[in-house]
Amino acid sequence: MSDDSSFAKPSSAKDAEEGLAFAPKFDSSGLVTAVVTDSKSGDVLMVAHMNADALRKTIDTGEAHYFSRSRNKLWRKGESSGHTQRVVEMRVDCDQDAVWIKVEQHGPGACHTGRRSCFYRAVPLKQTGSIALEFRDAEKAFDPHAVYDKK
Amino acid sequence: MSDDSSFAKPSSAKDAEEGLAFAPKFDSSGLVTAVVTDSKSGDVLMVAHMNADALRKTIDTGEAHYFSRSRNKLWRKGESSGHTQRVVEMRVDCDQDAVWIKVEQHGPGACHTGRRSCFYRAVPLKQTGSIALEFRDAEKAFDPHAVYDKK
Repeated sequence: MSDDSSFAKPSSAKDAEEGLAFAPKFDSSGLVTAVVTDSKSGDVLMVAHMNADALRKTIDTGEAHYFSRSRNKLWRKGESSGHTQRVVEMRVDCDQDAVWIKVEQHGPGACHTGRRSCFYRAVPLKQTGSIALEFRDAEKAFDPHAVYDKK
Repeated sequence: MSDDSSFAKPSSAKDAEEGLAFAPKFDSSGLVTAVVTDSKSGDVLMVAHMNADALRKTIDTGEAHYFSRSRNKLWRKGESSGHTQRVVEMRVDCDQDAVWIKVEQHGPGACHTGRRSCFYRAVPLKQTGSIALEFRDAEKAFDPHAVYDKK
């Protein structure tokens, strides 16, 4: 695949906000935040990070690529699970340090725990002290052991 | 306001994922990522960050609070613009380092540039080299100078 992952360099805040040059603002770790929503339901499926290479490969191929901070490597979504994500639309935010991708999620779920979305627990509001989460849309869409623990 | 912003401490990955103790995993800067969607349209309005205090105040009050990295301070959304956000639901993701809040956006827009959402430009896919963004839903919902440049 292309090793040209270079993008325009961020310029002034005004240009970043009102211009049409895509000049992603990577953080000190070289990452932008990626918010991933389901193109059909609109639900947030996951939040991940992209380095320049992941961003370039996502744009090149239309398939979601991320950078795994825990494994310190580029990661094509679905490379282990088969649950790939086809990007329907990519947007960038005002200061160009976050992208929003609307995806067609292939396979039953986006979350490695087996759920459709990573956001399967609600945080109750107007509580003080320690907070007990509540499961919400938390049914398992697939068995993660069967999917990931392949010999 | 309460100075009790303490939450349960993150435990094992398994407990973080499958348990019901809210134990947000703050990064090295003490922040979690907050994805903010419009409770009616489902659109992503903005991506921001919360420190423990912002998270606690959001939960306590049901009004969105963030931590501004550029200004290095707690920030109640709408404190300058009047465009507050009432939280309809808060969710947390599998590893508890990101929250998703669905909000009722008060006033015309969430973005300081005057748009309804911060994501008002599309990144065209399957392009190489430098990339020209395309405005999408980029109409100004309010005049940022009139809103922010008050004497």
